[in-house]
Amino acid sequence: MNKSLKIAIAGLGNVGKGVVEILTLKAELLTRRTGRKIIISAVSARNKNIDRGINLNGIKWLDNPVSLADDKDTDIIVEVIGGADGIAYELCKKALSNKKHVVTANKAMISKHGLELATLAEQNNVTLTFEAAIAGGIPVIKTLREGLAANNLNKVSGILNGTCNYILTEMKKGKRPFDEVLKEAQKLGYAEADPSFDVDGIDAAHKLSILSAITHNCPVNFSSVYIEGIKSISLSDIQYAEELGYTIRLLGISELSNGLIEQRVHPCLVPKDSKIAEVNGALNAVLIECDSAGPMFLMGAGAGGGPTASAVVADIIDIACGRITHPFGALIANLIDGKFGDIMNHRGEYYVRLLVKDQQGVLASITSLLSNENIGVETILQKADARNMTAQIALITHETGEKNIRKALGDIGKMDYVIEPPHMIRIER
Amino acid sequence: MNKSLKIAIAGLGNVGKGVVEILTLKAELLTRRTGRKIIISAVSARNKNIDRGINLNGIKWLDNPVSLADDKDTDIIVEVIGGADGIAYELCKKALSNKKHVVTANKAMISKHGLELATLAEQNNVTLTFEAAIAGGIPVIKTLREGLAANNLNKVSGILNGTCNYILTEMKKGKRPFDEVLKEAQKLGYAEADPSFDVDGIDAAHKLSILSAITHNCPVNFSSVYIEGIKSISLSDIQYAEELGYTIRLLGISELSNGLIEQRVHPCLVPKDSKIAEVNGALNAVLIECDSAGPMFLMGAGAGGGPTASAVVADIIDIACGRITHPFGALIANLIDGKFGDIMNHRGEYYVRLLVKDQQGVLASITSLLSNENIGVETILQKADARNMTAQIALITHETGEKNIRKALGDIGKMDYVIEPPHMIRIER
Repeated sequence: MNKSLKIAIAGLGNVGKGVVEILTLKAELLTRRTGRKIIISAVSARNKNIDRGINLNGIKWLDNPVSLADDKDTDIIVEVIGGADGIAYELCKKALSNKKHVVTANKAMISKHGLELATLAEQNNVTLTFEAAIAGGIPVIKTLREGLAANNLNKVSGILNGTCNYILTEMKKGKRPFDEVLKEAQKLGYAEADPSFDVDGIDAAHKLSILSAITHNCPVNFSSVYIEGIKSISLSDIQYAEELGYTIRLLGISELSNGLIEQRVHPCLVPKDSKIAEVNGALNAVLIECDSAGPMFLMGAGAGGGPTASAVVADIIDIACGRITHPFGALIANLIDGKFGDIMNHRGEYYVRLLVKDQQGVLASITSLLSNENIGVETILQKADARNMTAQIALITHETGEKNIRKALGDIGKMDYVIEPPHMIRIER
Repeated sequence: MNKSLKIAIAGLGNVGKGVVEILTLKAELLTRRTGRKIIISAVSARNKNIDRGINLNGIKWLDNPVSLADDKDTDIIVEVIGGADGIAYELCKKALSNKKHVVTANKAMISKHGLELATLAEQNNVTLTFEAAIAGGIPVIKTLREGLAANNLNKVSGILNGTCNYILTEMKKGKRPFDEVLKEAQKLGYAEADPSFDVDGIDAAHKLSILSAITHNCPVNFSSVYIEGIKSISLSDIQYAEELGYTIRLLGISELSNGLIEQRVHPCLVPKDSKIAEVNGALNAVLIECDSAGPMFLMGAGAGGGPTASAVVADIIDIACGRITHPFGALIANLIDGKFGDIMNHRGEYYVRLLVKDQQGVLASITSLLSNENIGVETILQKADARNMTAQIALITHETGEKNIRKALGDIGKMDYVIEPPHMIRIER
């Protein structure tokens, strides 16, 4: 048998615990599949004296996670602390410099420092892997980087944040407003105490920027991701979408458009009978458009200790078997200088919701202001509220440009019959 | 740059042509991703003088595909001739013995000779890969063998034959009988002139036996796959299934049950709102139950030149990058001696359709004969045909054993009120 492989784990939260469990409880399975013994050599976490329900007997404990990188015995550092900078980043840099492979679940760090860390790995002839950073247990990085490597991937889109998908699903199911569902999600552990990373779309954008880099073999470019979260989605939007034949989903989308890489995270109206609309609750899903293999759809558990640990250990197994892939799908020298698009050049259909005074001529004025920007209306719904003498209008436009719709909604917003700023959601088919 | 990689291709049908196209038209993409030039050194097919619409200039032509294995310049043999034995098998054996990697799309050959070929590859320190043998462009083998390698996979099931799924989908959509849809599928190229390999479930069983071996790290055992095709599915079955809340799909299922590996290919009633029911037309899909990563669902194009060639080239890319995986997920010496179950020990719910004389006491007799075998009825539908004085009965049982239902249906079949032999379809949730 080959020499045993020694793993040090930094962070013993749900994911770290899950990794310890798989490596210890399934040692026989892993040895069968890799032909090697995989041993936990050391661990580090904030507090030694917590009962985590896992057996750490005989495993070295280090109070300072960064010092795991100094351990001569260790082959792989598993970083599951989190955070774009700070200890996680310091540890990974040191580990790679010390010629240790790094397996991480840290999307914020890879999104920010991915190129630097990948370069460091390449220079030191070790591996940097982060399958667990995206879509939990779904091997989406492996699928893109290896399984579909014979394809030009023109579009990758998906539900990359389980918290948002849970909230949108529950809002629709229970006809409940955002705030109420968010509070429940926090109680159930589906959302953090500070939920902004999730509900503002930042987490999905980190993941999308990494997917996008792998898809196009270019450095991660987080700053060019257009980001909108789900806070502004009202129950009305969800109900109008339903009536119009759509479901609302927060999607991350990386798409080649006129030679530019369009990267965006925002709520979308997706047709009710599309695969992505049928992904409910905390699940994740990714849709990949391949030029040779056709459309591909992957769905599974996007978060949680078990699924994320499954991805971490898959990366460890790859290293144990000597299966090495360049982090962004090509040697650093071969990465392409990606040119990124601007949301202002996006074209598509749009859903628009307006709250207006219920008076004559309003509809004519709205359609005329849209028409001024060459925007045609495909469907329109109007519901009058006789008591308040207001009306809510929901409409779907034909394909138009982002600039056009923004200009038209700006003009409409200035009209004295408009009660609330116009609200717009992009449509994805 | 690393040394260039030389590929010889045996077979220039749709898949072979697709491989040539990807390797030539996307040479730059592949070199970026592998860091190597990938060159077609030689090809062989039955007839040299056909215009295939691909450029073979400068590529060596050999009339005898087996002699490709003698070419000193070649690193990888791509076998896309097909057939379990004959030339394909001879070529692969010789290629592996001559220390050339083999990439094949040949499910019949791998199902029959997989262990022998994998052993030969291991002895000669080369690779045998067959991603293209299952589910076309969907990287299901890579997902099982690498992406989910940290998991015990208790159940893998899926739509593995696009022809059958196309036929079942069209029968339902157009309310048309099997024979009519089959003829149309043949005209459209979705079914072969001799469709028995597909519609009798043999093709799906070849694929399932390979998936099963990978899932459990054991040698392929085709002979223990229980196989039923879709010829016996009537339009009535499809319509009753619909009324009862189900859709009919031909599934391949490998499942651990009491420590035994149950392998079966047969039509199933699946709940109408399940993911697998929503897979329409010629698509393929696989559902994987993982102990750590949870349920995983993959869907995509299951056949055709492009998708299958995408999988072949993905295997070539893996070899170019030095990413080697044991064909059945472990070294030959570490494979497990799989113990396989018998369909007679299967337990589940069943759908039963009966054509009977419309006379008093029939229903009481049927339910009593079921009850004799401890089979409870969950739902029952009866439709009388007054003109013929017959009635059609469709029912769903509670969970029971295969032996029980077969005994009960045998007893019912003997009754003089029964016009046709009772017809049964298993239910999968």
